[in-house]
Amino acid sequence: MSNAIDFYFDFTSPYGYLASALIEPLAARHRRAVTWRPYLLGAAFKVNGSRPPTEVPLKSDYVMRDFPRSARFHGIPYRQPSVFPVAAVAATRAYYWATAQDAARAVRLAKAIYAAYFTRDVNIADAENVVSIAASEGYDAAAVRAALADQAVKDRTKTEVDAAIARGAFGSPYVVVDGEPFWGVDRFDQLARWLDKPF
Amino acid sequence: MSNAIDFYFDFTSPYGYLASALIEPLAARHRRAVTWRPYLLGAAFKVNGSRPPTEVPLKSDYVMRDFPRSARFHGIPYRQPSVFPVAAVAATRAYYWATAQDAARAVRLAKAIYAAYFTRDVNIADAENVVSIAASEGYDAAAVRAALADQAVKDRTKTEVDAAIARGAFGSPYVVVDGEPFWGVDRFDQLARWLDKPF
Repeated sequence: MSNAIDFYFDFTSPYGYLASALIEPLAARHRRAVTWRPYLLGAAFKVNGSRPPTEVPLKSDYVMRDFPRSARFHGIPYRQPSVFPVAAVAATRAYYWATAQDAARAVRLAKAIYAAYFTRDVNIADAENVVSIAASEGYDAAAVRAALADQAVKDRTKTEVDAAIARGAFGSPYVVVDGEPFWGVDRFDQLARWLDKPF
Repeated sequence: MSNAIDFYFDFTSPYGYLASALIEPLAARHRRAVTWRPYLLGAAFKVNGSRPPTEVPLKSDYVMRDFPRSARFHGIPYRQPSVFPVAAVAATRAYYWATAQDAARAVRLAKAIYAAYFTRDVNIADAENVVSIAASEGYDAAAVRAALADQAVKDRTKTEVDAAIARGAFGSPYVVVDGEPFWGVDRFDQLARWLDKPF
């Protein structure tokens, strides 16, 4: 198998959520693995001097219409979270704690977090909600709670966020395959063709 | 025929240029006309407090790679202009002057302006270059030169730019069909499906 596809995303990002439902079938068709790399868009926004699209005057109405329309277009369930966007720090820390133990299981946790936020309106900014989601995936609630407060987990998360930005990630999803970056679920058509043959 | 598709774009925008090559075949397949509405992204950036992507630290390298890659993906000739981006005021004024006389001919002028900028590296910020492009399309050079200095043409252009922003345009391309907005050439897949049937 060739190099894995690096899949950068933020747990508060609707387009990252849509990408999370599409990336694995796409990768599988091209016999590639996917490395899931959640990070925090807020850190990229700080570097770029930018803001979430919902805070940009002419963009805000547009994206609130485009999020559910894009979900319908791809046939993916979507419910606009009532608290949006959020800082997905706890969710990101839970993922990096989990992936250090078992990467495949951590991907299932990531999907469960996305499903909770984007289909059941669970506020993932609340660490206790992240603990509950992890518990529903079979993790020990007390262990997750301890991990979220663990300095080593915080440090690992910060290292991963910094590495994402050093890699050039500034949006969600942001996918890198063999050094070639693709920003947005709306570049998955180009990503698929690139996986067939770089153009 | 149903309502025309409103096609908003900026003459300095690579994605607007790509869209200009794709919008008419797409519209024709759905038996729609297209109204070409160049405007000035700078005015939208002012409202949004945003900047061209080439001035955003993490975005700049990405878009300079994505512009030619997207052109190759769509099979459209593309050469990165050496002066980029530019204020396309003269080009936009020339278009609105021309469209007041003959809309179909003005569309051909718009295409000639895009081709000059994005395939032959003609700096369209220079009014004399816009005059030359128009002359090559059969317009009288002296008439174009006079039009670019005409207060009525300046006013018409400002009115159109203001109307685009009032309509919600903040990017290029920005397409509105029956009240539904689509931002980006990467929404043309959704646009095409919408034209078949709103979803």
